[in-house]
Amino acid sequence: MKTTLHFMPEDEDGAERLADRMGLVSQPVHVHRFPDGESQVRVSKATDCSLLYCSLNNPNDKLIELMFAAHALRQSGTRRIVLIAPYLCYMRQDKAFTPGEAVSQQIICNYLDTLFDRLITVDPHLHRTATLDPLFQRTDISVLSAAPALAHHITQKAYASDTVLVGPDAESRQWIENVAHNVNMPFIVARKTRHGDRQVSIDLPETAIVKGRPAILIDDLVSTGSTLQAVTALLTSAGATWVDGLIVHALLSQQDEKDLIAAGIRTLASTDSVQHKSNQIWLASVLAEVLQTEIDP
Amino acid sequence: MKTTLHFMPEDEDGAERLADRMGLVSQPVHVHRFPDGESQVRVSKATDCSLLYCSLNNPNDKLIELMFAAHALRQSGTRRIVLIAPYLCYMRQDKAFTPGEAVSQQIICNYLDTLFDRLITVDPHLHRTATLDPLFQRTDISVLSAAPALAHHITQKAYASDTVLVGPDAESRQWIENVAHNVNMPFIVARKTRHGDRQVSIDLPETAIVKGRPAILIDDLVSTGSTLQAVTALLTSAGATWVDGLIVHALLSQQDEKDLIAAGIRTLASTDSVQHKSNQIWLASVLAEVLQTEIDP
Repeated sequence: MKTTLHFMPEDEDGAERLADRMGLVSQPVHVHRFPDGESQVRVSKATDCSLLYCSLNNPNDKLIELMFAAHALRQSGTRRIVLIAPYLCYMRQDKAFTPGEAVSQQIICNYLDTLFDRLITVDPHLHRTATLDPLFQRTDISVLSAAPALAHHITQKAYASDTVLVGPDAESRQWIENVAHNVNMPFIVARKTRHGDRQVSIDLPETAIVKGRPAILIDDLVSTGSTLQAVTALLTSAGATWVDGLIVHALLSQQDEKDLIAAGIRTLASTDSVQHKSNQIWLASVLAEVLQTEIDP
Repeated sequence: MKTTLHFMPEDEDGAERLADRMGLVSQPVHVHRFPDGESQVRVSKATDCSLLYCSLNNPNDKLIELMFAAHALRQSGTRRIVLIAPYLCYMRQDKAFTPGEAVSQQIICNYLDTLFDRLITVDPHLHRTATLDPLFQRTDISVLSAAPALAHHITQKAYASDTVLVGPDAESRQWIENVAHNVNMPFIVARKTRHGDRQVSIDLPETAIVKGRPAILIDDLVSTGSTLQAVTALLTSAGATWVDGLIVHALLSQQDEKDLIAAGIRTLASTDSVQHKSNQIWLASVLAEVLQTEIDP
């Protein structure tokens, strides 16, 4: 089966790294936005199997354009479409918190389920739902972890072995444990309570451990940085020598990033799941591994 | 069957006029946009039949939020949802002009077809497709014309009877004829060739008729105003005493509107199909007429 890699405009860098690694031809999906806010989508020559690379940060426009691209690929003869969405949107609203609220996680998964044969994503931000599988009927799901890539980054940077890894909330425990085990460093996990889009309160037990030691704050998803700011302040006042930030999905704005640095984060590094100035960790090898079957079925 | 009217945030004015006219309770759909670009949607108490008012200018965000609202209404017990979209988006791309282009008209109609039981819209901007019906399998379609409302406006404004109505392109002939017949005024129709989003060339035969007479330029859809600018220039140089503009769907920006006035349009009036500073013509009565069956089935 002949396979090509198509990518949406914002995803060129990550897609090119993946295409290079897999020896695939990569082709841009052309997206034109008209003055009235409508989008025109054109795909390049399609093959039997099309990999479609579209990370779903800032998602609403992209979700519509993705639907156009999927239909255009089918129209052009593609029989199998694999969506590569390193960042998967709308995973937070997994229930109606007040009556009448749309459960967007369920609705968006249904939506993608009608469009794609397979979905590859990295560390979806799940709370009450344990896995994505029950949310899809038709689409095969491959959920990858960025933990090995983060561990590899920590090892390469040759951090001191007394560095403490810090998770900002209960959800982070699972993969902070994983990374800590891989790099043989101690870790602690904070407790977070959210009061609004940009208001959180943090409770950090066991802070004594960071006194006089460096700390790496690891978060899967940073959208405003308010959580990282609050944890950094606690670590600094507990006597950490410095605090670095490591992020899987960097959704934060340039201003939010500046605010983080001002709040005491020494350096910020992220995976290329979402195109961002802080990208330092490539996911191409993690993605390539599970995509090999699409080339040699 | 108990019926309520729900409206999206931008559609409050038009929806309230419709609710008043029909004696219906109207309820806002609450939409919150998070800093990362995701939307949270919450509907108010639903009834057996829900009218959902959402004009689809600047459509991508709204299309996603509309899907959320439709699911939330069903979840809350609504059995029938009628979408009132005075402006229907994505009607222009009705074929692939170059290979690989998504036919967004077909794709968007399929999408709406899965969500709603009935769709009410006004003067969809169709070219090669004569009617919307073949594009929907499940949803009942009611296509309304703003022509009577435009004619009513012209009559109310007491324009001189030698005023010439002008249509900017071949597509406008059908309803300019309709309006002209209603108000008993002569009309002419221009020929338009489009060269880009903001570049058009206009050929206007029979200009002799406007010499020393006022003209009303009537268009169904104005997104940048470049067409109206070009026609106004031709009418002015042919000796029209003044040129007024009358629009069904006013999608143009404030700057585009200023440019139109600078180009010689005396006044601009539009229907409230799309919320716009130029709105002077209410569609509530046109909409109410076909919606009566949703209250007294």
